[in-house]
Amino acid sequence: MPEIIKPGEIEARSFEIITSLLGECQPPAETADIVKRVIHTTADFDYADNLKFSPGAVARGLEALSGGCDVVTDTQMAKAGINKSILASLGGEVHCFISDPDVAAEAKERGVTRAAVCMEKAARTLTKPCIFAIGNAPTALMRLRELCDAGECAPALVIGVPVGFVNVVESKELILASGLPYIVAKGRKGGSNVAAAICNALLYRLRR
Amino acid sequence: MPEIIKPGEIEARSFEIITSLLGECQPPAETADIVKRVIHTTADFDYADNLKFSPGAVARGLEALSGGCDVVTDTQMAKAGINKSILASLGGEVHCFISDPDVAAEAKERGVTRAAVCMEKAARTLTKPCIFAIGNAPTALMRLRELCDAGECAPALVIGVPVGFVNVVESKELILASGLPYIVAKGRKGGSNVAAAICNALLYRLRR
Repeated sequence: MPEIIKPGEIEARSFEIITSLLGECQPPAETADIVKRVIHTTADFDYADNLKFSPGAVARGLEALSGGCDVVTDTQMAKAGINKSILASLGGEVHCFISDPDVAAEAKERGVTRAAVCMEKAARTLTKPCIFAIGNAPTALMRLRELCDAGECAPALVIGVPVGFVNVVESKELILASGLPYIVAKGRKGGSNVAAAICNALLYRLRR
Repeated sequence: MPEIIKPGEIEARSFEIITSLLGECQPPAETADIVKRVIHTTADFDYADNLKFSPGAVARGLEALSGGCDVVTDTQMAKAGINKSILASLGGEVHCFISDPDVAAEAKERGVTRAAVCMEKAARTLTKPCIFAIGNAPTALMRLRELCDAGECAPALVIGVPVGFVNVVESKELILASGLPYIVAKGRKGGSNVAAAICNALLYRLRR
């Protein structure tokens, strides 16, 4: 049997190993915990290179969360993975509209993705400042950019980490070029787990 | 703006791209849809090499699901990601005990992980055949192996894809050497998203 390590020590030990394996490629102090948490979630060191932060993005995210902002996700998985206890202690909650019957019906009628309609519903119905954490659907990110350009949405931070092979790279480039505050995983990689990990890294800094 | 592709075509196009990028390294027909779905979920081609299947594992999983087996996960994220509509149409449901207060209390008292206690609760309380889909906690996999060795649990299939840096590789080796039917991501990589993707690949074969 492998060595027994106390439950509370497993995560700390994991982060030590990640830091050690990063060697000369340590991320800057401002973003190190976020980069390492994503690597902890995926065991994929590509994220040491592909995570891109707009200037001040981390501070913007922390300020918004401290102020009780909500989080909008494009999947139930990302919603499930976010630490809702800490978020609630700050006054925020997570919204995911992807399974709503009205979203499904409208998407079918218009021939667009449910993820795109989700973003519209968020922009239309949520009045609090929001962090948008997109881990799956490039169409969510594309529609979010359009909504922002039209002045219909003003995210506190865009966590843009959809994964995949169709329009994923392009959707992230739209956010990188948007002027919005962002944390983006450049390239094809990402996922709901990555979106949740980034949210949680921010939340853990604010744990009381 | 990127090219607009109809929602229903995005996944098929993604799989075509994955097949094309796999080039000479196509997985065997029996497991191809599973391997490709995991790559679709992660954009990580390492899974073309690291996913290991015990002989007949896919057939065992399909048979169990067709017979209405349940699925046990170690995270709410994996539970959220599994296609519960198809599973329900076959007569099954997903269980995740990780957030149960009794599990948390017992884990704290005994100084073990909640994930390990989860496996014990599953073995003790579930009477139907189950597929165990472990995407996060190596301690879940280690305890599951012990329960099986003791004759207290007999999984229809073990999906062993925890991710990380502490005892993860070792926990998977325990399953690879167990004689149990398994689908395992050898090495450090895996995740709740990977566990859900493997379950879903099996479920999609049985979609009515």
